[in-house]
Amino acid sequence: MFDYTATYTDQYQITMSQVYFHKGMKNETAIFDYFFRKLPFEGGYTIFAGLEDLLKAIENLRFDQKDLELLEKEGMDQEFLDYLEDFKFSGNIYSAKEGDLIFPNRPVLSVEAPIIEAQLLETLTLNTLNYQSLIATKASRMRLAAGDRKLVDFGLRRAPGTGGYAASRAAVIGGFNSTSNVRSGRDYNIPISGTMAHSFVQRYDEEIDSFRDFAEVRAHDCVLLVDTYDTLKSGVPNAIKVGKEMEERGEKLKGIRLDSGDLAWLAKESRRMLDEAGLDYVKIAASNQIDEEVIKSLLNQNAPIDLFGVGTSLVTGRPDSALDGVYKLSYANEEPRLKLSETVSKINLPGKKQVYRLFNEDGSFYGGEVVALADEDDFDIMVHPSDPKQSRILTEFTKEPLLEKVVENGKRISIPRATDEIAEFSRQQLEKLPKEFKRFDNPHAYKVGLTKKLKELRDSLVHRHKERV
Amino acid sequence: MFDYTATYTDQYQITMSQVYFHKGMKNETAIFDYFFRKLPFEGGYTIFAGLEDLLKAIENLRFDQKDLELLEKEGMDQEFLDYLEDFKFSGNIYSAKEGDLIFPNRPVLSVEAPIIEAQLLETLTLNTLNYQSLIATKASRMRLAAGDRKLVDFGLRRAPGTGGYAASRAAVIGGFNSTSNVRSGRDYNIPISGTMAHSFVQRYDEEIDSFRDFAEVRAHDCVLLVDTYDTLKSGVPNAIKVGKEMEERGEKLKGIRLDSGDLAWLAKESRRMLDEAGLDYVKIAASNQIDEEVIKSLLNQNAPIDLFGVGTSLVTGRPDSALDGVYKLSYANEEPRLKLSETVSKINLPGKKQVYRLFNEDGSFYGGEVVALADEDDFDIMVHPSDPKQSRILTEFTKEPLLEKVVENGKRISIPRATDEIAEFSRQQLEKLPKEFKRFDNPHAYKVGLTKKLKELRDSLVHRHKERV
Repeated sequence: MFDYTATYTDQYQITMSQVYFHKGMKNETAIFDYFFRKLPFEGGYTIFAGLEDLLKAIENLRFDQKDLELLEKEGMDQEFLDYLEDFKFSGNIYSAKEGDLIFPNRPVLSVEAPIIEAQLLETLTLNTLNYQSLIATKASRMRLAAGDRKLVDFGLRRAPGTGGYAASRAAVIGGFNSTSNVRSGRDYNIPISGTMAHSFVQRYDEEIDSFRDFAEVRAHDCVLLVDTYDTLKSGVPNAIKVGKEMEERGEKLKGIRLDSGDLAWLAKESRRMLDEAGLDYVKIAASNQIDEEVIKSLLNQNAPIDLFGVGTSLVTGRPDSALDGVYKLSYANEEPRLKLSETVSKINLPGKKQVYRLFNEDGSFYGGEVVALADEDDFDIMVHPSDPKQSRILTEFTKEPLLEKVVENGKRISIPRATDEIAEFSRQQLEKLPKEFKRFDNPHAYKVGLTKKLKELRDSLVHRHKERV
Repeated sequence: MFDYTATYTDQYQITMSQVYFHKGMKNETAIFDYFFRKLPFEGGYTIFAGLEDLLKAIENLRFDQKDLELLEKEGMDQEFLDYLEDFKFSGNIYSAKEGDLIFPNRPVLSVEAPIIEAQLLETLTLNTLNYQSLIATKASRMRLAAGDRKLVDFGLRRAPGTGGYAASRAAVIGGFNSTSNVRSGRDYNIPISGTMAHSFVQRYDEEIDSFRDFAEVRAHDCVLLVDTYDTLKSGVPNAIKVGKEMEERGEKLKGIRLDSGDLAWLAKESRRMLDEAGLDYVKIAASNQIDEEVIKSLLNQNAPIDLFGVGTSLVTGRPDSALDGVYKLSYANEEPRLKLSETVSKINLPGKKQVYRLFNEDGSFYGGEVVALADEDDFDIMVHPSDPKQSRILTEFTKEPLLEKVVENGKRISIPRATDEIAEFSRQQLEKLPKEFKRFDNPHAYKVGLTKKLKELRDSLVHRHKERV
């Protein structure tokens, strides 16, 4: 993995810290909230991913000698450099569970720490959570489209550099079965799979010889790529020949892969040819520019595809390419803090907060959450963040707090969770979300309301700032 | 940086290698070409970036103990594992110069090595070059739009995970002046810069106090963010006050930053206010959803902006998100190799090749290149890759070979180049490209032709394969 050091951040985090340090604020407690504003892919939810990686990075985050030398060269003073040399995170982190569904404009993760420490985590937090959450969400959409067919991440070659390392992890959290990315499979304990490349077939004068050699050495895991010369005239007939030869040896051809042309038609024709040859157990894999819309279209055409290999659209999260997560100061100098904006929805929520999810009586998600002040113990109404006429009585719902303390005084206190465990949790949560929110076209809008107390606090701070200006 | 090991690859590279190993092909020489098919951003050129990082990674690429344990668990046999334990790249690499302009369907980099070694480099090569070239190209477009105004990479928080590390490097190669990303600045020796965040202003009860503290501690590098409460009523007036106070101390306020609202209008008003206060030396920086189109629009409106801070659109390379680079086998088993395709432009170029750029008499780029067989020493005509009616006599041009040997028998033989040197080379090359190719809308199409010999070789192989099918 990447060897994070504390300079994996924006320069201003360090210069602002220098000011805090020299102005006597270094021990002052601050709270920053990580949240996002817009659901990606015009969808109805986001999958929260990246937390385990983030917490691991924070636990070990230090300025190393190279960092300190650079900062000295950049003109930082010795007293501050001495402070940075001893830097390690000593605060608290409250977070949603990784794999859970998250929604706009409510805290997903909150950092409560000496202001310099909290500030220095900003860029790392955004960098890690924004990307992995985007990719997990993209993967989840493909999972919704693919039903119970297999989904394999083929993205490393088109991934944004080493970002591809974590993309494979996020894909599994969002519902992918496995990855072709061996290194991520190794480090994140993700199932690894793959087929063969055109180059392998090209190496041979005859396609069938390449199939035979592969089937011999990789008999237990043999998926043959059939489109190098001509899918139906050459690739599939040769795969069938080799499949029958494998049967004679008591082995089984696992699958064929289609990687070009009209996948729906080729899959149907290939299926028919395989079945007619008695190879009905041989699976059909498809790749080449796959995304959730292509999967939906192929399955609507009843294409008999058992496995989709997805690359570019998965690891780039296109067309959105980035989740717009931000990290905003909500408490400092012993007071709740606010950033004004012309757009009400861009004004942050001040103070230390908790988020409650609303459940129907049968345990399903109602489709809404309430953001409350952390010390509120009783409220039975939620109000709209900007429309004073909209509110909702909460007595019919069960409420469940979503932010749990995962780091206390710099020490991880939650139990680290494996990737497959997070993926399974995510799957269960998505199941509880009513299907209207999972629709691709104009999904239901999940409600995020505020308690009256929080809204009053925010409005009074807005008023105070506006008066001053 | 990332600790690459040889499992930073797709699973099939290893399984195909296993077949080559057991079928007696491990010492057979193969040639693979890296090239791409489609210019990103509907532009007229691509900037080649990522080579130095790639060569460094290849030089040190090994299977470590964790890799070998995983592969054993995945069922690889001991003999092959023993071979992998000793794996290191021993072949040759021919490459275009990093920072040069590259065009579709001609080799950018060629690997000539024992087939297993060449195969095992595929994913790493694609992963590194595709992303950095995309980002350098995106950066270069912003440079074209921005003229001589400063461009700063603010992208790490929205970058695709650790991909952001190399993105900052690629941005500089494409023409950015500096980055906020301290760690990349440190490792790639890139200028680092930054301003201040809203959180810093929010920390204080009064905006002006935050400005004063920052100006005191960071007097030599003070850019004040003026939109936390109200840009023209509060931010700019407070920045002017602090600027005048700095003057009294013999210091100079460096700049202000606008991060929301109508940037064109706010820049003009801010400029007027600053100038009226005698602070005409104070620069104006702008950020918030900047890309090449926004820069063009702002400058068309004569917005007096001196510096653009660019985040998301730079590091994600949207809307394209990925360069479609591929790595194709062109020689193996002592013969040129081909992959057929229904689309002629997708058929690869067989054999060992060289690429020649055509220059006009005055040293400017003609706007075309010829792909030749490596052992051709004389040709004076180039033909269109698919249209037999199109050809061009080359006698009026000077030709320059573009692929140079950078690795020989596994050893780096070209001198490593620093990021700023590559950036300067790229700038010079772009200057030589006629402006019609640099236009954003419908740029001139750069010609990539073949020598007759290469075309004949390709056509004869196509013919042979089609006959067989």
